[in-house]
Amino acid sequence: MRFAPPERLAARASALRRELAARGLDAIVVTALPHLFYLLNLRASAGVAIVEREPPGLRLIIDFRYVEAVNRLLEQGIAPPDLETVQVESTYDETLCDVLRGRPAARVAVEADHLSVRRWMWLQKEVDLSPAVELIERARMVKDRHEAETLRKAGRMLAAIVGPACACARRGRSEIEVARDVERLIEEAGFERPAFDSIVASGPNGALPHAHPTGRRLAGGDLVILDFGGVHEGYCVDVSRTVSVGPPTCETRRLHRAVREAQSAALAAAAPGVLASDVDGAARTALEGHGLADRFGHGTGHGLGIDVHELPRIGKRRTGPAGPDDVALAAGMVFTIEPGVYVPDLGGVRIEDDVLMTEAGIELLTPACRQLLDTDRPVPGRGDGR
Amino acid sequence: MRFAPPERLAARASALRRELAARGLDAIVVTALPHLFYLLNLRASAGVAIVEREPPGLRLIIDFRYVEAVNRLLEQGIAPPDLETVQVESTYDETLCDVLRGRPAARVAVEADHLSVRRWMWLQKEVDLSPAVELIERARMVKDRHEAETLRKAGRMLAAIVGPACACARRGRSEIEVARDVERLIEEAGFERPAFDSIVASGPNGALPHAHPTGRRLAGGDLVILDFGGVHEGYCVDVSRTVSVGPPTCETRRLHRAVREAQSAALAAAAPGVLASDVDGAARTALEGHGLADRFGHGTGHGLGIDVHELPRIGKRRTGPAGPDDVALAAGMVFTIEPGVYVPDLGGVRIEDDVLMTEAGIELLTPACRQLLDTDRPVPGRGDGR
Repeated sequence: MRFAPPERLAARASALRRELAARGLDAIVVTALPHLFYLLNLRASAGVAIVEREPPGLRLIIDFRYVEAVNRLLEQGIAPPDLETVQVESTYDETLCDVLRGRPAARVAVEADHLSVRRWMWLQKEVDLSPAVELIERARMVKDRHEAETLRKAGRMLAAIVGPACACARRGRSEIEVARDVERLIEEAGFERPAFDSIVASGPNGALPHAHPTGRRLAGGDLVILDFGGVHEGYCVDVSRTVSVGPPTCETRRLHRAVREAQSAALAAAAPGVLASDVDGAARTALEGHGLADRFGHGTGHGLGIDVHELPRIGKRRTGPAGPDDVALAAGMVFTIEPGVYVPDLGGVRIEDDVLMTEAGIELLTPACRQLLDTDRPVPGRGDGR
Repeated sequence: MRFAPPERLAARASALRRELAARGLDAIVVTALPHLFYLLNLRASAGVAIVEREPPGLRLIIDFRYVEAVNRLLEQGIAPPDLETVQVESTYDETLCDVLRGRPAARVAVEADHLSVRRWMWLQKEVDLSPAVELIERARMVKDRHEAETLRKAGRMLAAIVGPACACARRGRSEIEVARDVERLIEEAGFERPAFDSIVASGPNGALPHAHPTGRRLAGGDLVILDFGGVHEGYCVDVSRTVSVGPPTCETRRLHRAVREAQSAALAAAAPGVLASDVDGAARTALEGHGLADRFGHGTGHGLGIDVHELPRIGKRRTGPAGPDDVALAAGMVFTIEPGVYVPDLGGVRIEDDVLMTEAGIELLTPACRQLLDTDRPVPGRGDGR
C-alpha cells in the first residue's frame, strides 16, 4: 500500500491549523476515523486525535489493539514524526478528559458530525468544548496530488472492468449471482475491497434506487442497473451502468437516452466556480425535456475520496442545519455525476461516472462505454463474450 | 431472505413501549439503522422512525430511494401493518421537526448514541428532546426465537468452514491471498457477505490484534490468527482460530494451550445470572496462571446480532458515562468468548467462539476444532488437504 508521504501529512496538518486559527480555536478533538487516515495514515476502528493550533501538539489516543500498528507507521516514517501516542487505560473518553484537563483555558473544538450526543454530554461535564462542523471535511473536498493520483489510478482500474461487469448481467442469472461476479471482478482488478455492497437491480427492482440484489433471474426485456465500486489504497471510486437483457424496447431505449443526455448536460455544466446545484440543475432540465423530471428523485452526485459519499454534494440547493448547503466547484474536487430515472413496475436507468475537476475543466476518471448494451450479444471489451 | 414474522415485530414494539412508559417518555425518535431492521424489517442506509408510547403511533420517515422498498414490505405483510410512512421533502431533520411539532407537550426521546451533536443542536432549536441511552440496545441483548434460530443456523454455517479456512493458511501464501480465500468460503457457505474485513495475521503481525492482511508470506514456525465472520439473514457470527505453519515450537504450543484453557475457563464460568465481568475474569485468571495476563489487552467477548459488536460487553467491570458498565448474563443472550495473547515480535493466539445462553447454560453455536493445527499437514474436514 502506498501511503501519503509525510510532507503531505504535514501540509494537511498545517491547513487544519490555519483553519483552527481562523475560527479562533486552540485545538480540535478528531473523532472521525477517516480523518485519522487523512491526517496520520492510520487505518483503525477506534482512535481519537488532538491537534493543537500550535505545532507540534499532535496527540493520538489509541487502545492496546493499535499501539503496534502506530509504532510501525512511525518506524516506517509514514506517520507525522512529532506524533505523541497515549494509550487508553479504561475508556477513550476518560483518557481524552485526562488529556484535555491539562488545558483548562483553551477553546477546544469537537467534530459535531462525528460525536454522539451521549459522549458529548459526558465530556461536557468534565471539560468545556465547542462543536465544530465540517472543519476537516471541507479541507478534504479539494484533493491534494497524492489523493488525485490515487483516485486517477482507481478510476482506471474501475473503468477497465465496466465492460466485463456489464457482460455478467446475462439472461437467466440471478441478481445475487451477478453481484458476486462483479465483486470478483473488483477483487481481480486489484482493489482492496468493494467500496459498498454492489447493486444489481433488474426489471421492476430497478425502480428501487438502492435495491439489494435478490434471487430474481434476469429476463428478456429487463433493464438492469449495475452500481459498484472499489477501494484502492484507501480511496473510493464508484460507477453505474444500465444494460438491457435482449434488444431494448422503444421505451427502455428512450429512458436510457434521456439519462445519457442528462449526464452529458451535467458533465458539460461542471467547471471551476460553478455552483454544485447548477450542475444538478443541468441534469434536471435535460430530464424535464423528456417529461421525466419527476422520475429523478435523488441528487446528481456526491464527492468521492476516503469515503464513498463525502462533500461536495451535487444536488438541489437546500437550507440545512448550517445554512445554504451548496458549494462552488473548485479544481481538485472529485465527485460522481449520476442522474437516473425510476419508473415503478417497469424499472430504472442510472449512469454514473467519476470526475476530477481541474483548472481546465473536468477530467473523466472512469472512461468506459455508456451505450445501452444488449447482454444477449457479445459485449465489447470481453473477449469470450461472457 | 427470511424476515422476522409480524408477530415478532409487534412483540418488539410492545416491549419498547413498556420501556418508554417505565422511563416516563411519550415517544422515541429511532435513528440507529439496525433498530429500523429490528423494529420494521427495513434494511436501508437512511431512515428515522418515531414510535409513540400509545399504539398505533408508528411512523417512518424515509426518502425517495426507499419508498418502494417499504411498500413492498407492507405488501408482503412483513412490516408492521399500522406503519405510516412520511416521505422526506427537503432534509430528514426538517421532516422530523414537522412531525414532532405536532406534539408540543410530549416527552420525546432521541437515541443519544445514534444522533450526532450537530443534528441534536439543530433539532433542539426546534423541539424539546430528551437523550435516552441503550433503550433498544438493551432489549436487543436478549434474542427472541426468530433471532436465536437465525444465529444458530448462521453458527452452523460458519463452523462448517472453520476447517477449510484454517487449511487456507499454508506456507508461502500471503495474508491477503488467505483472506480472499476465506472470504470466498464465506460466500460459498451461503452468507450474504462477510461480517467484517477478515483478519489473517501471521508471525509477528499476529501481535497486532486488529491487523489488516498484508503481503507477508506465511513461513515455517509462524502462528497465524484467522478471524472471520458472516452475515446470514441480517445476523452476524464471528469466529477466530490460530494455526501453526509447520510443527509448533514449545513456545507457540504453550501460548496456544494457555489461550485454550482461558477460553474453556470463560465458557465454564458463563451461566444465567453470572456477571459478564466474572466471565472475563475467569479467562484472565487462567492466563495469569501461565504468566500471560499482561499479554491479553482486550475484552473476552462481545454480543452478536444485527451488529457484529453489540451488547453485552464481556470485559472488565468499568465505569462508563452511564455508571458501571456490566450486566448479568441471561437466557437469550448471544456473545463471543475470545481470549488472546499477543507477544511483540513473536505473534499472537486468539480462539473465538459464539455462544447462546440458555436457561440450562451455554449452547456453543460454532462447534469446530480448536486444536493447534499444523497446516503443512492435511487439515481435518477438508478432503483435498488444501
